[in-house]
Amino acid sequence: MEAYFDNSATTIVTDSVKDIVVKTMTEDFGNPSAMHMVGVKAEKYIKEAQENIAKILKVDPKEIFFTSGGTESNNMAIIGTAMANKRKGNKIITTSVEHSSVLATMKYLEEQGFEVIYLPVDRYGVVQMEALEKEMTEDTILVSTMYVNNEVGAIEPVGEIGQYIKKVNPSVVYHVDAIQAFGKLEIKQRRDNIDLLTVSGHKIHGPKGSGFIYIKKNTKINPIIFGGGQQMGFRSGTENVPGIAGIGQASKDCYDNLEHNVEIMTNLKDKLIDSLEAIEGVTVNSRKGNLGAPHIVSASFKRVRSEVLLHALEDKGIYISAGSACSSNRPAVSSTLKAMGIDKDLLESTVRFSFCEFNTEEEVDYAVGEIKQLLPILRKYVRR
Amino acid sequence: MEAYFDNSATTIVTDSVKDIVVKTMTEDFGNPSAMHMVGVKAEKYIKEAQENIAKILKVDPKEIFFTSGGTESNNMAIIGTAMANKRKGNKIITTSVEHSSVLATMKYLEEQGFEVIYLPVDRYGVVQMEALEKEMTEDTILVSTMYVNNEVGAIEPVGEIGQYIKKVNPSVVYHVDAIQAFGKLEIKQRRDNIDLLTVSGHKIHGPKGSGFIYIKKNTKINPIIFGGGQQMGFRSGTENVPGIAGIGQASKDCYDNLEHNVEIMTNLKDKLIDSLEAIEGVTVNSRKGNLGAPHIVSASFKRVRSEVLLHALEDKGIYISAGSACSSNRPAVSSTLKAMGIDKDLLESTVRFSFCEFNTEEEVDYAVGEIKQLLPILRKYVRR
Repeated sequence: MEAYFDNSATTIVTDSVKDIVVKTMTEDFGNPSAMHMVGVKAEKYIKEAQENIAKILKVDPKEIFFTSGGTESNNMAIIGTAMANKRKGNKIITTSVEHSSVLATMKYLEEQGFEVIYLPVDRYGVVQMEALEKEMTEDTILVSTMYVNNEVGAIEPVGEIGQYIKKVNPSVVYHVDAIQAFGKLEIKQRRDNIDLLTVSGHKIHGPKGSGFIYIKKNTKINPIIFGGGQQMGFRSGTENVPGIAGIGQASKDCYDNLEHNVEIMTNLKDKLIDSLEAIEGVTVNSRKGNLGAPHIVSASFKRVRSEVLLHALEDKGIYISAGSACSSNRPAVSSTLKAMGIDKDLLESTVRFSFCEFNTEEEVDYAVGEIKQLLPILRKYVRR
Repeated sequence: MEAYFDNSATTIVTDSVKDIVVKTMTEDFGNPSAMHMVGVKAEKYIKEAQENIAKILKVDPKEIFFTSGGTESNNMAIIGTAMANKRKGNKIITTSVEHSSVLATMKYLEEQGFEVIYLPVDRYGVVQMEALEKEMTEDTILVSTMYVNNEVGAIEPVGEIGQYIKKVNPSVVYHVDAIQAFGKLEIKQRRDNIDLLTVSGHKIHGPKGSGFIYIKKNTKINPIIFGGGQQMGFRSGTENVPGIAGIGQASKDCYDNLEHNVEIMTNLKDKLIDSLEAIEGVTVNSRKGNLGAPHIVSASFKRVRSEVLLHALEDKGIYISAGSACSSNRPAVSSTLKAMGIDKDLLESTVRFSFCEFNTEEEVDYAVGEIKQLLPILRKYVRR
């Protein structure tokens, strides 16, 4: 039996997405900027993808811009906003549990002279509102928080945050990294006062190398890539039509089946959490039901190094991740888990299981069974 | 009959490329950063693509980094070099016939306080060495020239330029935009002293959204996109494995058949140039044989606006481009043609035909026949 439980790292591309990618590579392959029919045909796929996504987010299709993925989307949201607003102030507020594509970008901005504040979180990874309230000062230009944490599945209070920001100062830009939330939660960026929302294709059965950013009309943001002026100048470069058509299709598929998919994933999550909590020396860092994202379970296994457990499970055809697995190979100790105050001796013993709607209860049972068998052996024979 | 003569705008994806894209989306779909087998399998495609390209360029596979396309590659080469070397000087030299992904990036750097020099060209679009020699001063940190001009197919003297730069000051970085040259010419970046070479996938039957940059070991360059530290920190973000595998395959296919393909394209080019030059009121701006790139013919049609000719030919199933067609929709008057000193009344009457190895002599004959029939009609009835 095999069980791919690493869907927060990346997902398999579904047939509907594959078909549209192939079609736009081999039939409707034109350059959307070309003025002839071959180009116009290609351009239609972009418009359709914009419309599909705009319908989900209930926004104007012209507010959707395509990028090369989540990392570029986050870079654009953060650097683009910082550069466009630097005359208004130089303070940026984010959290201490962001993805590396946000944290590394913030570090770059610090080198450029911006002040970046990292808000603390509680033991579940949820950001503290009081901390935000204390930090919001006149020179704040951008608040950037994730929607769902990629390592533990914590859901951040984006509604509360957005409301608070806009009450204090409507000109502060609110960016939400929705890479782990899109396709898993209903997103209400209007209600929640979100100005910029960033999404990746390959986390939702779309193609790698695809992503988008929702830019609320009139938001002050600069491009970070320059050239032919495609996408109204916000993102130059020949549009990746197959990637765009693919992420459009994947988004539609997700939201056409949202309730159904969420139910499947939540059931798997709750089942896994219950099973793991019943095992001695296992601490679950994620929450059941709708208190956390439906697809992520973080768990710490006392006296077992995460890589050791990962490779032992790999031998059984069970694929999980150690640390965030979104950063390149050898993972450092997770800053998210640290910020959550996870016991020091559990930091390097934490793994992530992440589901998609194609996973099954049998797979969870299989994994739990193998874990139960492996743990005593790993604890006995493997040196820490 | 149909004739797609817009291959410099974009090309159809071939079966070998499509197959590897599909395989990496639906079978070997892992995240290359994942530590388990599914990730390791995906990572192999990246290594293979690096090796394929490195073999063509005769460089170390570790000197190849993947991007989202030609525009990002050029942005990275130019901004990345400028930022990494700004303490050494603030002068950048480029040409007046660059692609918009270079020109717009230069404009951005001018706003950041860099001085940018645009070298003049001759009537064929070839940069003047004497101009470069005059401009190379102590505070020059970067020279950026294209290899093949995208609008007229001029081949720039990159060998001479590289040699001159390094003779004057070996620490000046030489960037060559090879987007229209790769797959059409043998590239000898070691002999030619090229430090950075940028390529796009979709110009060589690879996938849109793929590109690479060759970075010679020890070249001082900063990343422009920040995150998980993938690709040795030079380009963060989950690698677009299908795009990377695709551009690797496309590169290999091109160079495995380089001589053959070049012969086909050169024949078509020469045939088209001869035929067009025999028509009254047509000026060809490209050169025959190996004096120009094998695949591009620029021609000006007196008293016919380029869009009018483009759409008239489109009706006959012949697809060409007006202006560079790499910039978004409505093209402005081409700065390349202006720099070449094309007659003012021909600037808006210039179109580009661009070939790939799948075009045929019959297609050229068909297009020439249609042009001959259309020209008198267009000149008579269409208001300028």
